[in-house]
Amino acid sequence: MNHLHNLINAIEPVHHEVAHQANDHLNQLTKPQGSLGKLEDIARQVAGITGEVMPTFEKKAVIVMAGDHGVCEEGISAFPAAVTPQMVLNFLYGGAAVNVLARHAGADVVCVDMGVNADLEHPNLVSRKVRKGTRNMAKEAALTLDETIEAIVAGSEIVDDLVAKGYRLFATGEMGIGNTTASAAILCALTGVDTGLAVGRGTGIDDATWLHKQSVVNRALRVNGLHGRGKDAATGVGESASASASASASASASASASASANASAGAGSSDEYALEVLSKVGGLEIAGLVGVILGAAKHRCPVVVDGFISSTAALVASRLAPLSASYMLASHLSQEQGHKKVLESVGLAAMLQMDMRLGEGTGAVLVFNLIDAAGKIMKEMATFESAGVSRE
Amino acid sequence: MNHLHNLINAIEPVHHEVAHQANDHLNQLTKPQGSLGKLEDIARQVAGITGEVMPTFEKKAVIVMAGDHGVCEEGISAFPAAVTPQMVLNFLYGGAAVNVLARHAGADVVCVDMGVNADLEHPNLVSRKVRKGTRNMAKEAALTLDETIEAIVAGSEIVDDLVAKGYRLFATGEMGIGNTTASAAILCALTGVDTGLAVGRGTGIDDATWLHKQSVVNRALRVNGLHGRGKDAATGVGESASASASASASASASASASASANASAGAGSSDEYALEVLSKVGGLEIAGLVGVILGAAKHRCPVVVDGFISSTAALVASRLAPLSASYMLASHLSQEQGHKKVLESVGLAAMLQMDMRLGEGTGAVLVFNLIDAAGKIMKEMATFESAGVSRE
Repeated sequence: MNHLHNLINAIEPVHHEVAHQANDHLNQLTKPQGSLGKLEDIARQVAGITGEVMPTFEKKAVIVMAGDHGVCEEGISAFPAAVTPQMVLNFLYGGAAVNVLARHAGADVVCVDMGVNADLEHPNLVSRKVRKGTRNMAKEAALTLDETIEAIVAGSEIVDDLVAKGYRLFATGEMGIGNTTASAAILCALTGVDTGLAVGRGTGIDDATWLHKQSVVNRALRVNGLHGRGKDAATGVGESASASASASASASASASASASANASAGAGSSDEYALEVLSKVGGLEIAGLVGVILGAAKHRCPVVVDGFISSTAALVASRLAPLSASYMLASHLSQEQGHKKVLESVGLAAMLQMDMRLGEGTGAVLVFNLIDAAGKIMKEMATFESAGVSRE
Repeated sequence: MNHLHNLINAIEPVHHEVAHQANDHLNQLTKPQGSLGKLEDIARQVAGITGEVMPTFEKKAVIVMAGDHGVCEEGISAFPAAVTPQMVLNFLYGGAAVNVLARHAGADVVCVDMGVNADLEHPNLVSRKVRKGTRNMAKEAALTLDETIEAIVAGSEIVDDLVAKGYRLFATGEMGIGNTTASAAILCALTGVDTGLAVGRGTGIDDATWLHKQSVVNRALRVNGLHGRGKDAATGVGESASASASASASASASASASASANASAGAGSSDEYALEVLSKVGGLEIAGLVGVILGAAKHRCPVVVDGFISSTAALVASRLAPLSASYMLASHLSQEQGHKKVLESVGLAAMLQMDMRLGEGTGAVLVFNLIDAAGKIMKEMATFESAGVSRE
């Protein structure tokens, strides 16, 4: 618990004044003010995060965390649980979609075994296995509080190691058959949204399995005493994150606006309920990603959040440490139907509308290219003065 | 007129069977079927367009066409008309946003003077000036039919030249103070949508100027005898394009579906009303882009369509040559409010939600990266068999 509190307390507000300096520079460039939209938002936000007006991100990593889910014994997925370790090996041999897209983005894939239900060995595998899969949340708590905290701390330590190696930009990815079920349960428990809206098709299930998946999530919420507590739990913390989102959407310096909105919610304020939800209906890879996000925020590094599962981790992180929300960028709007609701709850706006629903970090690494593009806009565009272009 | 008919008649349906082969390959890769969403759509579409299952696009160009607009004398823009030639020079010196983003995408900027109201000279400028700006469409027809056809043919000839130099992937861009006004008028005239929905804020005008801009568009439509003709003009051609769009959205081989939908509308069928609209309320850079799009389709090259103005050119192209729609990819959804309507009319779905409203081709070149990513997915991902991953 001490480790987690230290992690949360180490997260500071972003640098408002540097985000403003970036904004001033953007307004000198040969374009109508704000006309590059979210590319300008990115430029302001990463300036505020890093404290540099024009940061460069040479080493980038997508951290793909894997874990198995006891709830798979309820028959909620189109794929067998054996696919989790099979796909981990695919990541390690470089053949998965996230490997291809990470190479394309000039990023490295860091593959972490947080709790796969198999004995995995590979020189490039980071093994932080807490246990071989979660317990079946439809019957009991998926994880103990200690296991959950161990997973979060492991995630943050992986970021510590990568930062020591020079990485400054991160993306979240995951693999775990059954983890859209866990994510839907987290979403329901934290926001009070109905299971019919939170539960999606995952890797591709039919109508009957979809209804069954909803009933399993409802059972998990009841068994774990989380049913109906979501609405009460959606307190000021979530609202402050939403406030920072609408600030980001405006043309003003978003990063600084987010920071002040978060600061007003109290720096480092923890939310014990979020931790309870994460342990009772979460997953080890999800808890690990909470740690990755908090770790990135601690080190003042931007972290690009992938689809539904990663965004659920971001939601938990923002409840544990409201200041962490200012360090996150959302990548894409997933086809998984709960995703929109999660992003709204965290206060994030997606950039890509690619109808993707794969996870692994595939949407997030595509956004690395947009972050690089925003950096070049800041460094390479002519100003009105230098180009001799008239202003309005 | 002969040149234009030859151009339109040279456009053939895409290769359905090659798109199907690409789809078969996608379904072997280690991911749930269709889970990479629009990346998979891209892979199928470019296979159908080029006739290669896994095409590579080594040389890419964004063709930025510039022209001035007589309607600027009505005071409809936040920037003075002098900005058009100033920005053309900025493109030629490499300091504009599109230059930065094209370099980032490994693409070349081809800057074309279609009708700038100034004498411009630069070794890298492609000069195809038809006249120094259009006439004021609020008082008379902006262009004659001959001028319009000359501009379209010029656009297609530029693609001819680039294809001869090895370019196989194109994006459209434009610069022209006043051209959101012309585009709104084209949209109203071709689809019957109300000016209140078609007219946007352009480079950033206030409420009073916005209302004035609407009244100018209405006047241009009346003066040119186009008022109220849009709804009748939205004939089967537009509907067939929409049908191809919903086919693309499905997980089936989109390119082949589009092709058959278009073929049913009659190969090479021309639409004289679209040409009339383009000449009366269009612009030289818009007509040039119509030619670029038709030229790309003729050469079986994908063409990425940028924001509102480029998409209006795409709408005209799809009315002149319905088969051309299968060769287009939409890039982003612009903040310019008429853009969504134009994309729907052509039957295109945007991939980026970046809140951009700059034009120049800035949104389109960002999509080059996604096309490259889709190509690598096809070439580099492991199959279920090669990776030993279980299927559902």
